[in-house]
Amino acid sequence: MKHLNLLVGGPTSQWPDQLTAGKVSGDWIGVDRGTLRLLNLGIKPLVAIGDFDSLSADELKRVKSAVSDIRQAIPEKDETDTQLAVTVALHEYQYDRLDIYGATGGRLDHFLANFWMVLEPRYRQYAPKIRFIDKQNTITFFAPGAYEITKEPDKKYLAFVTLEKVDNLTLPDEKYNLKNENVTRPISYASNEFVGDKGHFSFDSGMVAVIQSKD
Amino acid sequence: MKHLNLLVGGPTSQWPDQLTAGKVSGDWIGVDRGTLRLLNLGIKPLVAIGDFDSLSADELKRVKSAVSDIRQAIPEKDETDTQLAVTVALHEYQYDRLDIYGATGGRLDHFLANFWMVLEPRYRQYAPKIRFIDKQNTITFFAPGAYEITKEPDKKYLAFVTLEKVDNLTLPDEKYNLKNENVTRPISYASNEFVGDKGHFSFDSGMVAVIQSKD
Repeated sequence: MKHLNLLVGGPTSQWPDQLTAGKVSGDWIGVDRGTLRLLNLGIKPLVAIGDFDSLSADELKRVKSAVSDIRQAIPEKDETDTQLAVTVALHEYQYDRLDIYGATGGRLDHFLANFWMVLEPRYRQYAPKIRFIDKQNTITFFAPGAYEITKEPDKKYLAFVTLEKVDNLTLPDEKYNLKNENVTRPISYASNEFVGDKGHFSFDSGMVAVIQSKD
Repeated sequence: MKHLNLLVGGPTSQWPDQLTAGKVSGDWIGVDRGTLRLLNLGIKPLVAIGDFDSLSADELKRVKSAVSDIRQAIPEKDETDTQLAVTVALHEYQYDRLDIYGATGGRLDHFLANFWMVLEPRYRQYAPKIRFIDKQNTITFFAPGAYEITKEPDKKYLAFVTLEKVDNLTLPDEKYNLKNENVTRPISYASNEFVGDKGHFSFDSGMVAVIQSKD
């Protein structure tokens, strides 16, 4: 499975330990200050995206000398740098999975823009490839269907998050169950748990995010 | 204006400086580990909410001896401790404003459950009273109408966030404008800015959150 990672400029305090240790495998795209942080981890990104206006002159020089492909989003297009990075990742490179780090714990307008990106027509088909990963959470996205998911060993909690109207949401074998629930608005069914290592769920319309998390 | 604050158990690294310094005025309700953190700030909450199962025996003893009114949410009701705290604050006490601290930067299933709380029929009418505040963000909620908002001196960015279908969203005098935009899904119009100290906006249906933020 070909695997691409994005590092966005959110606080490093939210990084999972594996990233802090520089041990996340795969290719990288850097967004804003994330690019500099990748260089500090000894990782040279394929592409750097951002206006880098929060970097000092020396930091910017370092980014420019290390990365040949540097691009910038256009704010008027209501496109964030992270969205541009996802577009580049999905359209110019062929990856089966896209993991986004550094997108949490900072500006909430950015987090929500990125979280809801999967609802845009141009990204919707790619949603199942996208994950958000931080110190306490892994977010994955699902189109209508029936699924089996596997518990992450270090996570205790399991949440089913309806991003929009969702029909017939069924959670048959988790700690708290639902049967053919028609959900008419965004709800985070939080603090559920796996019973054992596997869980199943299904739904007929809309988009569902699954969040595995720990305290 | 009578003012109540809630402290939830999210990471203290996300607290605004004023809270870290113990200088936020008003009465308090503590949620989970937030209760212990209030006691550490020298603040005795009116009510403490949670099962406190993450506290040590000594910590729990301290909470129990300091707070006489301790309550717990029922997970099967899909109600988080924060939601119970908001119910208690709105129904048993009469406050004009409810500021929620400590709700960001930790578990995202919790953050989303709390953020979307205002869409539940039982909370919808109270949404304009509720704010979420952390180190980089202030979130406020608006019912349909026309509004003037004031820039917070320490914040640079302004976002308009449609929590659901929103008709005729108009941003007439911000850096980036919209005119009678019919928004059919949740979108965070991020990284907008005030032009001057005041801004106006209006919309005809649905719920909008405004986020003032800084890097």
